[in-house]
Amino acid sequence: MDKGQNLYKKAKKLIPGGTMLLSKRPELFLPEKWPSYFSKAKGCKVWTLEGKELLDMSIMGIGTNSLGYGNQEVDDAVLEVVKKGNMSTLNCPEEVELAEELIKMNPWANMVRFARTGGEANAIAIRIARAASGKDGVAICGYHGWHDWYLSVNHNSNDDELSNHLLPGLEPLGVPKKLKNTTFPFQYNNFNHLEDIVNNNEIGVIKMEVVRNIEPKDNFLNKVRELATKKGIVLIFDECTSGFRESYGGIFKKYNVEPDVAMFGKTMGNGYAITAVVGKKEIMESAQKTFISSTFWTERIGPSAALKSLEVMRRLRSWEKITSIGKKIKNGWETIAKNYKISISTSPIPAVSSFTFNSKDSLYYKTYLTQEMLKKGILGSTNFYACIEHTEDNIEDYLSNIDEIFSTISKCESNDLDIKSLLNSPVCHKGFNRLN
Amino acid sequence: MDKGQNLYKKAKKLIPGGTMLLSKRPELFLPEKWPSYFSKAKGCKVWTLEGKELLDMSIMGIGTNSLGYGNQEVDDAVLEVVKKGNMSTLNCPEEVELAEELIKMNPWANMVRFARTGGEANAIAIRIARAASGKDGVAICGYHGWHDWYLSVNHNSNDDELSNHLLPGLEPLGVPKKLKNTTFPFQYNNFNHLEDIVNNNEIGVIKMEVVRNIEPKDNFLNKVRELATKKGIVLIFDECTSGFRESYGGIFKKYNVEPDVAMFGKTMGNGYAITAVVGKKEIMESAQKTFISSTFWTERIGPSAALKSLEVMRRLRSWEKITSIGKKIKNGWETIAKNYKISISTSPIPAVSSFTFNSKDSLYYKTYLTQEMLKKGILGSTNFYACIEHTEDNIEDYLSNIDEIFSTISKCESNDLDIKSLLNSPVCHKGFNRLN
Repeated sequence: MDKGQNLYKKAKKLIPGGTMLLSKRPELFLPEKWPSYFSKAKGCKVWTLEGKELLDMSIMGIGTNSLGYGNQEVDDAVLEVVKKGNMSTLNCPEEVELAEELIKMNPWANMVRFARTGGEANAIAIRIARAASGKDGVAICGYHGWHDWYLSVNHNSNDDELSNHLLPGLEPLGVPKKLKNTTFPFQYNNFNHLEDIVNNNEIGVIKMEVVRNIEPKDNFLNKVRELATKKGIVLIFDECTSGFRESYGGIFKKYNVEPDVAMFGKTMGNGYAITAVVGKKEIMESAQKTFISSTFWTERIGPSAALKSLEVMRRLRSWEKITSIGKKIKNGWETIAKNYKISISTSPIPAVSSFTFNSKDSLYYKTYLTQEMLKKGILGSTNFYACIEHTEDNIEDYLSNIDEIFSTISKCESNDLDIKSLLNSPVCHKGFNRLN
Repeated sequence: MDKGQNLYKKAKKLIPGGTMLLSKRPELFLPEKWPSYFSKAKGCKVWTLEGKELLDMSIMGIGTNSLGYGNQEVDDAVLEVVKKGNMSTLNCPEEVELAEELIKMNPWANMVRFARTGGEANAIAIRIARAASGKDGVAICGYHGWHDWYLSVNHNSNDDELSNHLLPGLEPLGVPKKLKNTTFPFQYNNFNHLEDIVNNNEIGVIKMEVVRNIEPKDNFLNKVRELATKKGIVLIFDECTSGFRESYGGIFKKYNVEPDVAMFGKTMGNGYAITAVVGKKEIMESAQKTFISSTFWTERIGPSAALKSLEVMRRLRSWEKITSIGKKIKNGWETIAKNYKISISTSPIPAVSSFTFNSKDSLYYKTYLTQEMLKKGILGSTNFYACIEHTEDNIEDYLSNIDEIFSTISKCESNDLDIKSLLNSPVCHKGFNRLN
């Protein structure tokens, strides 16, 4: 893997932070050893710069490819676009067709705007919802990107509020300090917390991930919906990660609750950049009272890839397949951990599942897991994002390695082995860390 | 063109504002008649949904395709990416290669971040510059996208300040009111105005387009540079539109002035989405003190298309070709207008040139021009964005039509003809207008 690490060393000199996405930073997996770059990707396989084939049992492009890398039908649609032209002075008809499909998928909604990244979709939804409600205050729960409106939370009195929201240790440098107390995080399943925020601030928008680390309880989602309706607050569900994992569309369908606006992204174009903001007409029309416009939102690959991806998803009922695969992995983790008396916590959406070692040495164990998997030709970590190309053999292969690894970890937990002595690289980073 | 207009009618019901980019809104060209959508684009030709071939003598994808639509070398690079895989858990090596090329192009700079849209590149540059300077105040001059940091200008005391900056009539609805007086617009070539703003506010960043509607005079750009250096302000040049039009890189090279940070986009990937923020190390490293991260910034098409586009540009010296073509059009407008005693004003960058009729009926004339061009199979307006595929014949053909059109307009100007009686559609919109 030397080529990849050498290139990454160069990258860190040329690119602040090394990569464009924090979650693809090699230090989050296996510092100094992670292959870092790919030459080819197909199905659930990735090839390193040396041409070494690896089985991807980790983040599958951080959830962009639930139909597998290089899905032939989607790629054929994209190849056709490249041949016919991706861009012109006129608009591409596929964006209207995709808007229609998204409204069909979301009968509670009437209108759609597209962007190319999740951060953009989040910022568009906030702009529209603020314009519609006439209020700037936002209550949030979940991860919603890198933009000012979101990171400003860390300017609020409680310094590190976003720690509960996936960005531990983040300083909001470069985010206008005047935005202090415009966005307020609330705790998942803590309805009173949200009610307090709404009662004590001019809140016009509630934005949340429907499910992330834990399942909803005590009718939480419906209470949020009722509160929003009662107070005239725009309720936004960020389905960028959860969308198309358990249903054809948002995971909110599973919980019998509907938002006013929803965002979709990630796997919607199966590896091609496209994100969408879908919402009720009376809210979405506010987009006309403000300025939301970008040249590259007009390119044709995005909507064309999404149209084909959605067609394939519908035909295969891909959400059922990936959920079934995800469940096998998740059950595997839980069963094997139990066998070895290791304490782990797992996340609720099977198709994008993850676990944490409940141990002071959790990061060392995670590093060890990745190191050992890589020796076996597997990209593995404490996440597993399922795609329809993951086979029974892949799952078996992976879980038999998990068995071996957990067996060793159990010896470390009982102090029969020193985990640090087993690592051939520095321990992996937890999240946001400055690189040198 | 009925198919296009029919689809657009549907689009307006499904998509607030009808299109993803204001500048591609049919009402800005020829309401009720503009073809609106394309089926194919190649060279400088665009095909309507009916398959009718049109010569694009207008905005060429709003400046995304200076090497023409469907440039074979660029498209071949993209086809290769689609075959090898656009996305994976690992990063694409092309982003490092592109970063290297951009640093070679900009020896004053050391580090690069990429995004996929111009609005994002603008927001990234502002975040980094604010983090580096430790100050939130920004002085701006030009068009810099749709994000809150920019539109907040319209919350400042002088209600419609952005009118001078390409967005007449825009209400900043949905932009937090607390951002009032964080961004301050200054007038191009008015150095005292900028100095006043800097002396009376905590300004950490100056962002501007190097040239847009008029040429710099009185050493304006160098004075801005000196002021920024003296005051420790980060100077950002937005080269999204002007880049690669008069040099291999920024137009600032022509004026012997260097920024601390520059953004490139539009034609950099010749029709594929890719934008870049390039800057000095001491500033760019501030990106590590904040959170700037997005899943789709890791896709491979963008940097691969840019690498190939830049190679082709260097080999052909495309900026010289498009400048030469642009000059012919611009000179044509000026000469023909003079012949018919019509008063017009033209913009300074030949490769992305435009003109305005200096008349109370300017919008009617513009509509008439577009209407008549379309009858001849030409997409034409008061802008002309040159690409290397525009031939002498195309230029001649276009200018002979301009001659006829200006001849008619001169009769309207002298009241021998009523321009309104010549229009078969409503007059075009000026800019930001609510659609029904």
